[in-house]
Amino acid sequence: MGKGKLGICVVGLGIGYAHARNYSKMEDVDLYICDADRAKVERAKAELEVKGTFGTIDEVLESPKIDAVDISLPHDMHKDVAVKAAEAGKHIMVEKPIARNLAEADEMIEAAERAGVKLMVAEWQRFAPSIVKAREFIGEGLLGEVFLVCVYQLGFVRITGWRLSKERTGGGNLIDSGIHAVNALRSLGGADVEIVFSQTTRLVLKEMEGEDTSVTVVRFRNGVVGNLITSWGISTPGPHAYFTVYGTDGSLWEQLGDDGGLYIRSSRLPEADEEPVKVDLPKVSGFEAECRHFVECILEDKEPITGPREARADLELVVAAYRSAETGMPVRLPL
Amino acid sequence: MGKGKLGICVVGLGIGYAHARNYSKMEDVDLYICDADRAKVERAKAELEVKGTFGTIDEVLESPKIDAVDISLPHDMHKDVAVKAAEAGKHIMVEKPIARNLAEADEMIEAAERAGVKLMVAEWQRFAPSIVKAREFIGEGLLGEVFLVCVYQLGFVRITGWRLSKERTGGGNLIDSGIHAVNALRSLGGADVEIVFSQTTRLVLKEMEGEDTSVTVVRFRNGVVGNLITSWGISTPGPHAYFTVYGTDGSLWEQLGDDGGLYIRSSRLPEADEEPVKVDLPKVSGFEAECRHFVECILEDKEPITGPREARADLELVVAAYRSAETGMPVRLPL
Repeated sequence: MGKGKLGICVVGLGIGYAHARNYSKMEDVDLYICDADRAKVERAKAELEVKGTFGTIDEVLESPKIDAVDISLPHDMHKDVAVKAAEAGKHIMVEKPIARNLAEADEMIEAAERAGVKLMVAEWQRFAPSIVKAREFIGEGLLGEVFLVCVYQLGFVRITGWRLSKERTGGGNLIDSGIHAVNALRSLGGADVEIVFSQTTRLVLKEMEGEDTSVTVVRFRNGVVGNLITSWGISTPGPHAYFTVYGTDGSLWEQLGDDGGLYIRSSRLPEADEEPVKVDLPKVSGFEAECRHFVECILEDKEPITGPREARADLELVVAAYRSAETGMPVRLPL
Repeated sequence: MGKGKLGICVVGLGIGYAHARNYSKMEDVDLYICDADRAKVERAKAELEVKGTFGTIDEVLESPKIDAVDISLPHDMHKDVAVKAAEAGKHIMVEKPIARNLAEADEMIEAAERAGVKLMVAEWQRFAPSIVKAREFIGEGLLGEVFLVCVYQLGFVRITGWRLSKERTGGGNLIDSGIHAVNALRSLGGADVEIVFSQTTRLVLKEMEGEDTSVTVVRFRNGVVGNLITSWGISTPGPHAYFTVYGTDGSLWEQLGDDGGLYIRSSRLPEADEEPVKVDLPKVSGFEAECRHFVECILEDKEPITGPREARADLELVVAAYRSAETGMPVRLPL
């Protein structure tokens, strides 16, 4: 960083493209990219301010221009690339899930600790204004005592390629898109999760090896009950909020569709005592905020909010849910 | 019934008042009422066509004018009154739940069988046009293969009197109002329930002995997963349908509030292939239909749709959910 700007290389231009776009706008970042697919590289070069490109991950890790890598690769590549990046002294942002299983996650976490580099998972939910504000309201006691948190992530996604493979992803829908909803649930529940019970199905995307749908009940250590449904097999969901939090003095939810946004009804808020009110939120996207946070954690030597502890806890809940679905039994955390 | 009209006595004019109103409109029924509360009796006499009144249950059961009783009493009175009614040769409609526990339910069922009288639980959900039509659509295969059924019965009810007592009700919210949602879930799931996992809380109505909120996941024997939330502690729920059924070829739901009603989206229905359509439903209420069904079962010697098997299965799921919530373990049915 002696050279003034932080050199970040986005490795993998799938979801990584969105990260690259965010880094590209930052004054204090030099964006580099690396992808085996030349077309993706050319598109990024045409559309974004790209300082340089790399053909292989080894070249990225050997380059003194690179301070940090953003690993947006299939799940089965996270661990090896992250460990090598740590050993090369590069800070690490890794796309969710941190890894396919806890053993891989722990290797990554240890490697980052040993090397003294930052390790952050790209869990944008934790930076989404609706979740940040909901946590603030809950923390201020506006809902009284919370007793129920529901998160419903329902949609239709035709999965292809490596994401069909249980070996490559570590599971199915829940460890993939679903882990965002897991983070939202954990984040709103206000405590560690104690018990996980889950049932999964795969009737819609029969080409997948893992589940396309999961239904989970958790109990947090503070007694809050959580209810989570995630699915790639629902093209037309019935009316539902993305998340809803119920407390003794009110409720809040993120509404979808027209009039979407965060709503709160609380007997502790005069303006929202009778009818729910829509909350004004900052116009920043969770994606932008997470990328900025990663950069600031490096520049200011801070611990990332979605650092090893958060990243591992999300994955732990997913692994517990899979174990529960397989055995038909609840699973107690920590694993 | 040689006297031309069926003599039905509604015993208990709480929820029983709604039943009395329905019987009162029927040409082939003579309505009698019985309640210790004189004010309720007078109100019913003023508002409904009441053929006669009784001061005590024994008088009801001794009267040759009475062919059938409609027992709308606290749960802890169901069994004794029903068994005596059966022994007196009276047909029996009993308010939900059939009883506080399966032992009581079985005594009632055996007594009715021995006496050769009808026994029906007043589960109006099973007669609600939205549920009847949803079952029809599912049965016709319009949703393809069903994989997920959700039922959310969320509201605020300030519970008082005997309903606060676990001893008198057999539990809390789930065995009381909640059992309607249990019936809806079972009814839409299309098979017997195999596994029940439940968590309950009671943070809002602290004066209750039982739970005010329950969150339950079930697996049906056909592999369908069910997700059920019932609560008396939620004054402002987030957006949700009452029930939603998801299948491989579409979904259907009962929408609440403005534009409430049954909606379906199905790739097998040309008119609902892209966008959900609202379904025309008969203008009959489930309450009316259930009372009429009881009368017809007696007059035409038919087995009630919500007879012993259905009534017991709803209660069995509730009992399993309570056992699960207490132990933290899933419970397998049959108990």
